[in-house]
Amino acid sequence: MSHPTDANCIFCKIVAGQIPSFKLLEDDKTIAFMDINPVNPGHSLSVAKGHWPMVDTIPADVLGAVAATAQKVARAVISELKPNGVNLLQANGPGAGQSVPHLHIHIMPRQPNDGVALNWEYKPGDKAEIEAIYKRLKAVL
Amino acid sequence: MSHPTDANCIFCKIVAGQIPSFKLLEDDKTIAFMDINPVNPGHSLSVAKGHWPMVDTIPADVLGAVAATAQKVARAVISELKPNGVNLLQANGPGAGQSVPHLHIHIMPRQPNDGVALNWEYKPGDKAEIEAIYKRLKAVL
Repeated sequence: MSHPTDANCIFCKIVAGQIPSFKLLEDDKTIAFMDINPVNPGHSLSVAKGHWPMVDTIPADVLGAVAATAQKVARAVISELKPNGVNLLQANGPGAGQSVPHLHIHIMPRQPNDGVALNWEYKPGDKAEIEAIYKRLKAVL
Repeated sequence: MSHPTDANCIFCKIVAGQIPSFKLLEDDKTIAFMDINPVNPGHSLSVAKGHWPMVDTIPADVLGAVAATAQKVARAVISELKPNGVNLLQANGPGAGQSVPHLHIHIMPRQPNDGVALNWEYKPGDKAEIEAIYKRLKAVL
């Protein structure tokens, strides 16, 4: 399936398999993988395969597919990690905390008093911990 | 169109027209209206007409419709209000800051140094200001 791409975009490179990821799901329009800068354990991303920077330009059917993939990941997060809550967060523009200008939805498990804010600091996570959670989620997806 | 309802749910009452709202959009599956506790001017909500508490149980096609309606509102917010950014935020469970257990997506315009956090305090907004922004958005939707 053809879609717009940007040769300099890190998510396009992940979609193309040029950069490895802890991939949770993939279909014709979307891909989901673990966020490597998690705010909480299980933080993952549902990403459009095509390169559309923000919500204003992405086709509605692709946005719906990204939401459906986020839903699947959220179900897995809820059933497997049993967090205190889950936020789905999609950012448009640097002022909204968007770091990669390629549409994606964050699936963010929440814990009591976790101090998570919309514009959170990017702190690289423990890769082994990320992989361990990835495997638990992958097993139920 | 029939869908699940909860007689005690404030959003079900808004959908049914029993509680007034600054309605931005409506289709067979969704409704969008202004948030009356805005974190920033233009803060609005895309809401499923049916009563599903969280993302895990809502049918995927309804979730897609809620996302598509949020997209339309976001486009209006971007073109009309020209914010520094826009967050689409969907909360599941009190631990994620969900106050109304009926699935909805926040469309949150962002401004520099606005201090918006995922678990924001609910402060009632200026109703006249809300209505004025509602009218601007409604005019381009």
